[in-house]
Amino acid sequence: MTSPVIGTPWKKLNRAVSEESLEGVDKYWRAANYLSIGQIYLLKNPLMREPFTRDDVKHRLVGHWGTTPGLNFLIGHINRFIADHQQNTVIIMGPGHGGPAGTAQSYLDGTYFEIRPDITNDEKGLAKFFRQFSYPGGIPSHYAPETPGSIHEGGELGYALSHAYGAVFNNPSLFVPAIVGDGEAETGPLATGWQSNKLVNPRTDGIVLPILHLNGYKIANPTILSRISDEELHEFFHGMGYEPYEFVAGFDDEDHMSIHRRFADLFESIWDEICDIKATAQTNDVDRPFYPMIIFRTPKGWTCPKFIDGKKTEGSWRAHQVPLASARDTEEHFQVLKGWLESYKPEELFNEDGSIKEDVISFMPKGELRIGANPNANGGLIRQDLKLPKLEDYEVTEVKKYGHGWGGMKGGKEATRVLGYYTRDIIKLNPDSFRIFGPDETASNRLGAAYEVTNKQWDAGYLSSLVDEHMAVTGQVTEQLSEHQMEGFVEGYILTGRHAIWSSYESFVHVIDSMLNQHAKWLEATVREIPWRKPIASMNLLVSSHVWRQDHNGFSHQDPGVIDILLNKNFNNDHVIGIYFPCDANMLLAVAEKCFKSTNKINAIIAGKQPAATWLTLDEARAELEKGVAEWKWASNVKDGEEPDIVLATCGDIPVQETLAAAEQLDAEGIKFKVVNVVDLLSIENAQDNDEAISDEEFTELFTADKPVLFAYHAYAREIRSLIWNRPNHDNFIVHGYQEQGSTTTPYDMVRVNDLDRFELEAEALRAIDADKFADRIAYLEKHRVDTFQYACDNGEDAPEYTDWVWHEAKAKTEAAGAVTATAATAGDNE
Amino acid sequence: MTSPVIGTPWKKLNRAVSEESLEGVDKYWRAANYLSIGQIYLLKNPLMREPFTRDDVKHRLVGHWGTTPGLNFLIGHINRFIADHQQNTVIIMGPGHGGPAGTAQSYLDGTYFEIRPDITNDEKGLAKFFRQFSYPGGIPSHYAPETPGSIHEGGELGYALSHAYGAVFNNPSLFVPAIVGDGEAETGPLATGWQSNKLVNPRTDGIVLPILHLNGYKIANPTILSRISDEELHEFFHGMGYEPYEFVAGFDDEDHMSIHRRFADLFESIWDEICDIKATAQTNDVDRPFYPMIIFRTPKGWTCPKFIDGKKTEGSWRAHQVPLASARDTEEHFQVLKGWLESYKPEELFNEDGSIKEDVISFMPKGELRIGANPNANGGLIRQDLKLPKLEDYEVTEVKKYGHGWGGMKGGKEATRVLGYYTRDIIKLNPDSFRIFGPDETASNRLGAAYEVTNKQWDAGYLSSLVDEHMAVTGQVTEQLSEHQMEGFVEGYILTGRHAIWSSYESFVHVIDSMLNQHAKWLEATVREIPWRKPIASMNLLVSSHVWRQDHNGFSHQDPGVIDILLNKNFNNDHVIGIYFPCDANMLLAVAEKCFKSTNKINAIIAGKQPAATWLTLDEARAELEKGVAEWKWASNVKDGEEPDIVLATCGDIPVQETLAAAEQLDAEGIKFKVVNVVDLLSIENAQDNDEAISDEEFTELFTADKPVLFAYHAYAREIRSLIWNRPNHDNFIVHGYQEQGSTTTPYDMVRVNDLDRFELEAEALRAIDADKFADRIAYLEKHRVDTFQYACDNGEDAPEYTDWVWHEAKAKTEAAGAVTATAATAGDNE
Repeated sequence: MTSPVIGTPWKKLNRAVSEESLEGVDKYWRAANYLSIGQIYLLKNPLMREPFTRDDVKHRLVGHWGTTPGLNFLIGHINRFIADHQQNTVIIMGPGHGGPAGTAQSYLDGTYFEIRPDITNDEKGLAKFFRQFSYPGGIPSHYAPETPGSIHEGGELGYALSHAYGAVFNNPSLFVPAIVGDGEAETGPLATGWQSNKLVNPRTDGIVLPILHLNGYKIANPTILSRISDEELHEFFHGMGYEPYEFVAGFDDEDHMSIHRRFADLFESIWDEICDIKATAQTNDVDRPFYPMIIFRTPKGWTCPKFIDGKKTEGSWRAHQVPLASARDTEEHFQVLKGWLESYKPEELFNEDGSIKEDVISFMPKGELRIGANPNANGGLIRQDLKLPKLEDYEVTEVKKYGHGWGGMKGGKEATRVLGYYTRDIIKLNPDSFRIFGPDETASNRLGAAYEVTNKQWDAGYLSSLVDEHMAVTGQVTEQLSEHQMEGFVEGYILTGRHAIWSSYESFVHVIDSMLNQHAKWLEATVREIPWRKPIASMNLLVSSHVWRQDHNGFSHQDPGVIDILLNKNFNNDHVIGIYFPCDANMLLAVAEKCFKSTNKINAIIAGKQPAATWLTLDEARAELEKGVAEWKWASNVKDGEEPDIVLATCGDIPVQETLAAAEQLDAEGIKFKVVNVVDLLSIENAQDNDEAISDEEFTELFTADKPVLFAYHAYAREIRSLIWNRPNHDNFIVHGYQEQGSTTTPYDMVRVNDLDRFELEAEALRAIDADKFADRIAYLEKHRVDTFQYACDNGEDAPEYTDWVWHEAKAKTEAAGAVTATAATAGDNE
Repeated sequence: MTSPVIGTPWKKLNRAVSEESLEGVDKYWRAANYLSIGQIYLLKNPLMREPFTRDDVKHRLVGHWGTTPGLNFLIGHINRFIADHQQNTVIIMGPGHGGPAGTAQSYLDGTYFEIRPDITNDEKGLAKFFRQFSYPGGIPSHYAPETPGSIHEGGELGYALSHAYGAVFNNPSLFVPAIVGDGEAETGPLATGWQSNKLVNPRTDGIVLPILHLNGYKIANPTILSRISDEELHEFFHGMGYEPYEFVAGFDDEDHMSIHRRFADLFESIWDEICDIKATAQTNDVDRPFYPMIIFRTPKGWTCPKFIDGKKTEGSWRAHQVPLASARDTEEHFQVLKGWLESYKPEELFNEDGSIKEDVISFMPKGELRIGANPNANGGLIRQDLKLPKLEDYEVTEVKKYGHGWGGMKGGKEATRVLGYYTRDIIKLNPDSFRIFGPDETASNRLGAAYEVTNKQWDAGYLSSLVDEHMAVTGQVTEQLSEHQMEGFVEGYILTGRHAIWSSYESFVHVIDSMLNQHAKWLEATVREIPWRKPIASMNLLVSSHVWRQDHNGFSHQDPGVIDILLNKNFNNDHVIGIYFPCDANMLLAVAEKCFKSTNKINAIIAGKQPAATWLTLDEARAELEKGVAEWKWASNVKDGEEPDIVLATCGDIPVQETLAAAEQLDAEGIKFKVVNVVDLLSIENAQDNDEAISDEEFTELFTADKPVLFAYHAYAREIRSLIWNRPNHDNFIVHGYQEQGSTTTPYDMVRVNDLDRFELEAEALRAIDADKFADRIAYLEKHRVDTFQYACDNGEDAPEYTDWVWHEAKAKTEAAGAVTATAATAGDNE
């Protein structure tokens, strides 16, 4: 299940780069520049062979020229390099808004014609290719999933390096030149991305060659890295473990062939260094090498008019987007555009019929080595199903022996630790295609069993075995204290055909909200309209150290709102989102298995890591997960066919615990209820919005047509409101969730201040049924909540009635004692 | 309105640090360490004067020891420094989970007793102080707003430097030692935070002294920066423009007084350098200096037991949280704890009555110079209201002259450009207490008028006036391509008593979702329970380049979901959130004024930057804003007292435009409607959840008791559902919003694919009223939507019926022609 080896990796050239190749590169560069400008500006008459007029210019000129010629230059050279070395290569184009460079490249390597048979290699196809760019009915302006060869859209900046490094983990034959814009280099995620070289091993992983595209300007400003001294720039990169090579061109009248020769020579010498690093690593994989990187200092908008309207354009921020914005409206701009296009000598690049001349592309790689055809950039092609161990081997079996709700806060199972055994064995079965990522939290989130079979990969130096536990220069666990890095690594890893899980503290998933958005958008575009992109493994995100057990860390660690981010991406039956709230360890196992088998999704699995009850057998969990929601008949006290007074609905491990504790009391008070648990949040979504949700009939069957539903929910209540607003009986839902009430005290104070504790839930149920009738009990409960807080204040921990509570025992006791109806007696039992 | 000068800034000591001071520092260090351990472990008997037993240990041991002794050491020395120099100083404690160090410091500088009179300076107060830490009824475990002196909670890592630099902008007398944890240093936001030194000027701003707290370990791993070579470490910082000074201590048996002497000498020599930088800058503020920074390499958990249970603890990740987890449960751990506490010699630190001995604290600064008392760290104390120019001077007056809906997509006003004139003049009136921040987007978002009166501050080097426009080494606009930096700078700036606005592309606000969460939580805690923190200026966030005009950038730039992030923080009548959707330039002015006058809020202002109609006069805008929502009688066609067939509700500039275009047609079809516009999203929230929202009576008055309400909304429809689920008539709301449908074509294709275009809105209104009766018209509209897309495909731009549409003209035309009822005729008019 290793990633496929394509070509003959890591071979030195051992000869000079041929003049023919470099002539090819120069033609590629001119052709790609011409194709880029054509995409931005031209509506028709793509080769200016008909009389060329302003009518041929698009009405709306959109796109980004500034970064594009530099990208075209680099990609031309990378093509030459791949062909000469037959090197398995995927590129990352950080400045994704240079989209025309990406499409031009796949036009020239021929892959575009393969995925888009409507675009033919002739003048007609060229016209269509130009016209479609960021045009009605056309394609996006970025290096989007629509473009073959892309695994990095580059619309939101910051992730070029984490994607690149994610792609090379366990991919020892893969070379990834990663072009980083100097604008992107100012973002936080990119700034820490450079440090990824401390987490890869040159023997077992591929090699990333970062190329800083230092063209000096952003939309409206210079870039920081372009305005510091050369000394600082070199120290900066060397200090991060790179050997920087600066290449400067385009600021004088140096002949282009001379520039190509210089760059090719530099690239080959860097490549020799990389091959040496690879070779050395075969016998010594312990000493971290200085990896080469390139500082590519060229003018922004390179080769465009130097001045437009008297203002410096090439080499300035004015070249960022569309330098000739009035090319359709004014003859003056139009003539400049014409001259600019002609400067690339299209007559040398295109045949009579508009097809590309053979000598423009003859130097390029063939077959799977083409940038647009490398299967690593269409990971679904090479993805294999994970080998999954038998889930039954990990089941918490005490439920079968002792009954539902086995264990409790003391003596119960830590759900994520059980998951850890499962993921440990997945690593065993898939030793180089499944990884665990974590922002310093893998052990904290209880996935540490992995260290029985693998190590944390760490290539940044070792001190002493007294402190360096479970670490090695190669291993299947990756940690850095950066959610951005983890999310980016996972994306790069799964986009290249592998599988992963990563875990985060619940609140800090928000750090990468925007990355989840972007990945979801990539998936949405893919499932909607890109059939040639084969399904990739899902992004599996274990959300642990959740809000309900963050009392010790306080308010800043209490935010379950990532669900909203994901709900916004749940649309149109794309099914790219999964949101799961396993109630216990067995359900977590079932959910994990489902997630690992799924493709093209972001799965958020919100699970506790603290000792807790196990409610269900694995079989029950699987059966419930099938639908996403189920009545827990063993916890309900209505008979079949009988109408309950109230439905007690639960979603999340703590809501289940508190609801069942309340249910025991309600049972004692003679209330008829049924308990319904939701594990797959989207299963209850309005049926009209989700064709995988349960039907309205099933919804009514579960939640009744007209009874109150007390819904105890893990996260913000408004999420439930927004999901079920058109469901039968929705106005009868009383939703209790996280209320933005922090606590720095005890676990049960967290639920108490957020009105999700057993006493408030009980009181709320009674209010919903008959507030007058149960007035005494309600008053007692309200007071008791205060009293239990006082208990915690007096004792420094929660009262035993919480901490020692075990469903099975209490129920057994209640059953033995017979139904207790007197409020006072029940209250007494409760203390 | 300049920030106050406290003490006598930037004076060299010109003598050796006295032995007495250093003895004080050592006592401070011991006392702070003792106080820290006491907070984590001790329930009572704080000075072990009663027989000391396991009963005196807390039941739940929570907190983070690992970083704390290093923090105590540094803060002790900073106290000595402040006292010796009388230097205006605010500290940033990046590792905020070392909260005990923060509370210990304000216990020792006396500010804690001032804000918490229940904590007295005696054994009883000490017991309470220990007990309350992360304890029921107590205080958070971080350097939270509850602790005086803090402007940085440090719960979510990454923002220590952006907060520090934000505090020093326009604060030339302020010195900010910013302690950065080596875990935090691995995050993206922190990694780019170092580059902030390119954006400050030593003449007009204060000075940040970063101190890398290199203690080597995170929760479970070594840190990257602790495991690279010294050479790399130095190059890294020097390459980022710092002169790094490494201080190593604690790894051998060096006498503590010797360590203190070495550190104080280093600090003084660094301070001399800083004073030289300041002095030089008075005559040369152009050449960027290398700012000093300190690499503080000491053992994690310094001074705790070296081994516990045979495992290395001091100097390892095992010291991260609570090293002696069983101190209450086992005598063995308890005895270790006892010895550890005794090692600080509490008898030398506390008097008989438990108060702090005078010679522990006599070396510390007094009055406002105390870390806990510096008014810069309680910005509301020094905040002055912004001087705001008269809003009328910026009003778009054409509405008065030509009527409502003046202008259109062509010829209309760019709302944010009008705001730009206003903010320009705010800078004029408040030249050193109001700043504009932007991630390279200030001009793109049309706030460029500021450059008429100020410049972009840029201290990273200049090339040529051909490209370097509107830049200077000091100025009131700050740009870096990092939303993290902008948000962090604004937080630092307003938390120290000043005012700001920053702008972002709508989609990329998600990059700093988590920072908005954290700032909101800071505000929530403040308004709920910290009366001594005075109100600070609001975080004003202009959300522009919004989703509806991102067709050219494509799907990755289309995400309006930040509203959900903010809605989750809108709870409990804290009123820390404002969400505004100004319909036009005049409303944007009114909203901006309201936001600039507000305090303790996060205000999101979602406004377009493209030419668009102006609907309201400034007076009308202000009147509507007062309530947050208003009927637009001039756009409605029902007479007073008459019941409409439908309510056309709008929220957002594009929804308004499309709805009013639909309304014209509905008018022609004889439909009776009223138009209701929502500018303040929270005004329509369920009344029970928001005491500033309109009443249910007002809601019914606006939205009727039982008529359909077609709600055209800027963002995700589910947000509206979650806000109004308990409002009268809520089940009759038909909400159209952004549907996660990307477009890369034209502005009107964006609305079309998201069902927010005029034709779909018209059709939906007709469906809601009488689908059968209007079947022909509906069918026509459905086809027409397809046709207009085809028009765009054929022509490369939207049809004139969209782009040339102007409310006033069309209405005038309709009125002149009389009501057109025949569907065919209306359709004809429309083309």
